[in-house]
Amino acid sequence: MPTEVDLHYPQSCPFCTIANAYQSTPSDSLSSYVPSSPDPARVSPECHLILCTPTVLAFLDILPMTRGHVLVISRRHAEKLGDLRDAEGGALGSWLPALSRAVCKVTGVSDWNTVQNNGIRAAQVVPHVHFHIIPRPETVPSLQARSWTMFGKGQREDLDDDEGAKLAGEMREVLRMELGRAGEAEEEAGKAKL
Amino acid sequence: MPTEVDLHYPQSCPFCTIANAYQSTPSDSLSSYVPSSPDPARVSPECHLILCTPTVLAFLDILPMTRGHVLVISRRHAEKLGDLRDAEGGALGSWLPALSRAVCKVTGVSDWNTVQNNGIRAAQVVPHVHFHIIPRPETVPSLQARSWTMFGKGQREDLDDDEGAKLAGEMREVLRMELGRAGEAEEEAGKAKL
Repeated sequence: MPTEVDLHYPQSCPFCTIANAYQSTPSDSLSSYVPSSPDPARVSPECHLILCTPTVLAFLDILPMTRGHVLVISRRHAEKLGDLRDAEGGALGSWLPALSRAVCKVTGVSDWNTVQNNGIRAAQVVPHVHFHIIPRPETVPSLQARSWTMFGKGQREDLDDDEGAKLAGEMREVLRMELGRAGEAEEEAGKAKL
Repeated sequence: MPTEVDLHYPQSCPFCTIANAYQSTPSDSLSSYVPSSPDPARVSPECHLILCTPTVLAFLDILPMTRGHVLVISRRHAEKLGDLRDAEGGALGSWLPALSRAVCKVTGVSDWNTVQNNGIRAAQVVPHVHFHIIPRPETVPSLQARSWTMFGKGQREDLDDDEGAKLAGEMREVLRMELGRAGEAEEEAGKAKL
């Protein structure tokens, strides 16, 4: 059954397609927002999902600039960052540190750019708010000399689905472990109060 | 009297210098986080402040890539986005939509990039977490062809202090009006519940 979003954006927004394919319900346990083994083939091209909350999703870019390139989107369709509600911006921002740590740990790369483009002149390709997390490995020496036009499709290579599944699985594992530890720490703190 | 941050980062972090110079106390009124007429000369080079909360500050970049280039920083010193607590990331993210709208309204530019760099290979210049909000006006035609190295100092021009004071004042005005309206709407909603 088409949702209200489908009716407003019929097949036109690839990120709404992903958001619709992977639903989420509110939970007290943050680690439950990291899906166990999401089916990449629920959408086409395949989606290698990392995080799935009622407000935010994260998955691998299908045209990565570097290995481990992740996108973090708002679930609700909004074209530009200025179209988001404060709480949606807050939810996106609250996941960026943990997602960044997961990307760094899995790729072994310690430097990265977080980039969010708004409008054609800013090289926005998909008109649905998304942050890029782009590792900057030492082994891409010419990277800093490349231009903003890298955000276009021409200079990027398709993500291999096997590689994508492996990478996303490792990122989910790292994220789940961190969130589990945070949950345990909270539980311990709760106990200490008793 | 030096704070703990001063002792750990003696004069070495320009963003800590700004954060120390402009203090803030928690408030129920978001618009109170937009300072009325902050003194730019409290630090050197001058700081054209736009937002000052207990967790987040925003001010004009002193080496703007384009007119209206704003920086949004965490008050606490942390080098990279991954070093932030979730709540700090959330606070930064929750201000980005409103700050973006203020930048667009004052510059009259509807496209912009939000960029946050981590580490030397990612072109981070000041090692203290900050998001750039960079307008992309039509009148800088070669912009998209420019490279990541734009984040270096060489290709940017110093902000004129008079122009900075005017721009920041206009951005504060736009932000304060929006937050005031939001506050009124909340108050109305509160009344309606009675």
